[in-house]
Amino acid sequence: YITTLAYKSELRTKQQHLNEPLLDHREGQLFLTEAFKVILEEVLCKGIDVNEKVCEWREPEELATLLDLELREYGEQQHQLLQRVRDVAKYSVKTNHPRFFNQLFAGVDYHALTGRFLTEALNTSQYTYEVAPVFVLMEDEVLSKLRSLVGWAQGDGIFCPGGTMSNMYAMNLARYRAFPEVKLKGQWALPRLAVFTSQESHYSVMKAAAFQGIGTENVFKVNVDDRGCMITDDLSEKIELAKSQGAVPFLVHATSGTTVQGAFDPLEPIADICDRQGLWMHVDAAWGGSVLFSKEHRHLMRGVERWESGACSGIQLLECNFDLLKRCHSADATYLFQQDKFYDMSLDTGDKSIQCGRKVDCLKLWLMWKAVGSQGLEERVDRAFAHTRYLVEEMMKREGFQLIGKPEFVNVCFWFIPPSLRGKENSPDYQDRLSKVAPVIKERMIKQGTMMVGYQPLGGRVNFFRMIVISPQLSYQDMTFFLDEIERLGNNL
Amino acid sequence: YITTLAYKSELRTKQQHLNEPLLDHREGQLFLTEAFKVILEEVLCKGIDVNEKVCEWREPEELATLLDLELREYGEQQHQLLQRVRDVAKYSVKTNHPRFFNQLFAGVDYHALTGRFLTEALNTSQYTYEVAPVFVLMEDEVLSKLRSLVGWAQGDGIFCPGGTMSNMYAMNLARYRAFPEVKLKGQWALPRLAVFTSQESHYSVMKAAAFQGIGTENVFKVNVDDRGCMITDDLSEKIELAKSQGAVPFLVHATSGTTVQGAFDPLEPIADICDRQGLWMHVDAAWGGSVLFSKEHRHLMRGVERWESGACSGIQLLECNFDLLKRCHSADATYLFQQDKFYDMSLDTGDKSIQCGRKVDCLKLWLMWKAVGSQGLEERVDRAFAHTRYLVEEMMKREGFQLIGKPEFVNVCFWFIPPSLRGKENSPDYQDRLSKVAPVIKERMIKQGTMMVGYQPLGGRVNFFRMIVISPQLSYQDMTFFLDEIERLGNNL
Repeated sequence: YITTLAYKSELRTKQQHLNEPLLDHREGQLFLTEAFKVILEEVLCKGIDVNEKVCEWREPEELATLLDLELREYGEQQHQLLQRVRDVAKYSVKTNHPRFFNQLFAGVDYHALTGRFLTEALNTSQYTYEVAPVFVLMEDEVLSKLRSLVGWAQGDGIFCPGGTMSNMYAMNLARYRAFPEVKLKGQWALPRLAVFTSQESHYSVMKAAAFQGIGTENVFKVNVDDRGCMITDDLSEKIELAKSQGAVPFLVHATSGTTVQGAFDPLEPIADICDRQGLWMHVDAAWGGSVLFSKEHRHLMRGVERWESGACSGIQLLECNFDLLKRCHSADATYLFQQDKFYDMSLDTGDKSIQCGRKVDCLKLWLMWKAVGSQGLEERVDRAFAHTRYLVEEMMKREGFQLIGKPEFVNVCFWFIPPSLRGKENSPDYQDRLSKVAPVIKERMIKQGTMMVGYQPLGGRVNFFRMIVISPQLSYQDMTFFLDEIERLGNNL
Repeated sequence: YITTLAYKSELRTKQQHLNEPLLDHREGQLFLTEAFKVILEEVLCKGIDVNEKVCEWREPEELATLLDLELREYGEQQHQLLQRVRDVAKYSVKTNHPRFFNQLFAGVDYHALTGRFLTEALNTSQYTYEVAPVFVLMEDEVLSKLRSLVGWAQGDGIFCPGGTMSNMYAMNLARYRAFPEVKLKGQWALPRLAVFTSQESHYSVMKAAAFQGIGTENVFKVNVDDRGCMITDDLSEKIELAKSQGAVPFLVHATSGTTVQGAFDPLEPIADICDRQGLWMHVDAAWGGSVLFSKEHRHLMRGVERWESGACSGIQLLECNFDLLKRCHSADATYLFQQDKFYDMSLDTGDKSIQCGRKVDCLKLWLMWKAVGSQGLEERVDRAFAHTRYLVEEMMKREGFQLIGKPEFVNVCFWFIPPSLRGKENSPDYQDRLSKVAPVIKERMIKQGTMMVGYQPLGGRVNFFRMIVISPQLSYQDMTFFLDEIERLGNNL
């Protein structure tokens, strides 16, 4: 209480001295330095230690109390704030931990993280050469390097805040190419449009169709085979179906690496269909695009060079082989993109973006790439495939694990069949009981904090696990642990 | 060359050892620690020193060479990478510098920056309580605290990647409320819609209309007064005009703090019109919303509690007083939002978002707020106003400065009239010559690196400067420097 009063009075005094900067840089930098040590200790040392928990589960009410989230009238002292940094770290999930297999991201790369810290400290926006000279040039270099992986000598692109946004850009570009008047007049003046994507494509296609005024019922879902790959005969049929309903097809949204099964749609035959029908082929490679780094595995995306646009792996960017980005998105803000600047105004790339302020995303990837080279990135991809192969082999040796198809990529989908259900496949309640296994195992693992892995139903299949093998810090031991742990948690079910 | 070979061979050896993690954590953490020191030194010490340059201008070709941007087959050694960190810092614009007045952001807050570092190190996504327990609760706390500033006891909201995205959310929500069938059927099945916004509102309204299938010609631009505030009589007229053209009005996009002049649209009368017409009132307070923290200045947003949605200051978030976010944006991805989770699934807020993965943005603001309290935030706002007042007074004492209206907010718009143009207002080439003054002064200041400030034409006015007074580290000396420097750079024009 006394401290608060003292702090209050100190602030009042400061207020009378408008001539003094409000911030004490020395104190601030000291805090940042101390906090950096906490981050290093809690997130990067403990956070990757297999002897520590992946997550420290708390019920929401308890967690809210522990964190003391409330924002108050007066500020706190530095040592209290440092404790808050420690608490936030403690109760957050350790996605860097070798036993975090829950999402399509995992592990830590120190050069990438350095790139992020530097980006945040520099705190600028990507829109003009004036305020982001380094990053305008750097983004261009990264994009053209990725473009060359795809097999293009030229094109255009942009980093986006996530794969969903990349897919939305593609939908807008495709619509604009087909009907340039849409920018001025809106979808209202257009015929009913039709988009095609596989049943197992990412849900962002639906979000995009809703958000961009196309409508979710105008997304035609193409059937997939057992692995989750688009059946191109059905694509042709769905295109005819849409036409017969009076809708105008304009975009095929193919997927390289589906979210759950990691399936790759066959790009060559899809491109053939797009050519014949005059449709835009977008390839959502937000998950699978990293195979392009690997001589051994890039065949999964054979035909990729025929795309009109693509969302690239993890990196969350859009590549487009037309010079459409600016025409489609520009609004010519005179306060940013002055036409009488003293440098080449084509360097002000901000009008390609639907955003105004746009965070710098290229440094992270650039620094990591500089650190390990294309060769190092290729090695990571190849290792992930090798680890996946190993996991699958080990899994097949164990009685309780039933694979859902052979993985094409690094997603390993499987049911764990507890002893009580083995050999009961024909019981009428088998599917129902099986569907309850994964949620219970998941609850147990989270509450014990030993590891994290996702599950879901899909199509006609009841809940199954989806294990993701991508972290560069994985070893065989982690795979063995994974299998042992699933058994330990589920054997009495 | 030898090093590269050695590195290559080392990697090959590693490749044979799939059982060893690829990453050396000790080495990585050492690198991060060294890089942190460089960031502290280059960005946070030199970067805020008035004796150092705000920017280190280089022509693009020269800069590309200096940075050696090319991404190659093999990686580099740690000391080279550390030099790259140093180079990126050196040639980047120092937005933390006290003489950076170029954009609507400036200065550094060490607690906010700590929040960003911690967020990046934790590297999770905001979509579920499962992977972001701390941040799901924290986002809710920050949003409801901001909501209470607006004057609401309840509502909904979300952090967005920028003000433009917030405005797009609002446009989609407003359309969905008016025509819920749009999600399924698309804009194609709707009548022509009409949006209303002032001539000086942010260009993102146009981007949103284009992107979301509404069409830019369906954005009706309402006239503004000299200060840049919407004229509500003209709003009523434009609504009638739209109706007479057969368009259906659904959204008024008002602005609290326009980008160039910092004008506040009169919310009470606009809300009256929206009530009468049944229109959604969105308030784009992405720039001006911080006045809500100040008892002295919050009158600028009188009537704000009557909004249906708002984009809030600098914080880049959307607040909405309906429970529409989820219904409007949901796609029910079963692999993320499992319906058989063991905790309260309303905590999985990801389906409110149009994004799938969503970066954590709340920690930065939360930690800063904890550090200074509401009182400290209020003080910052009041200080910015006080500094603006001081700058304006000093400006009026000097012969060469001609204000464009009295600032309502912290944007100070003015022409610098060089001695050769003073008293020549009636010359036929006066406007033409005046329009060339700001670009030349800007070029000179950037090439010398002494400070950065923006300029633009607006409406019928030729190029004028827009000075932004927000950094908490400003002092009177910086204002004096600013005026002296404009004179020094422009006196011989």
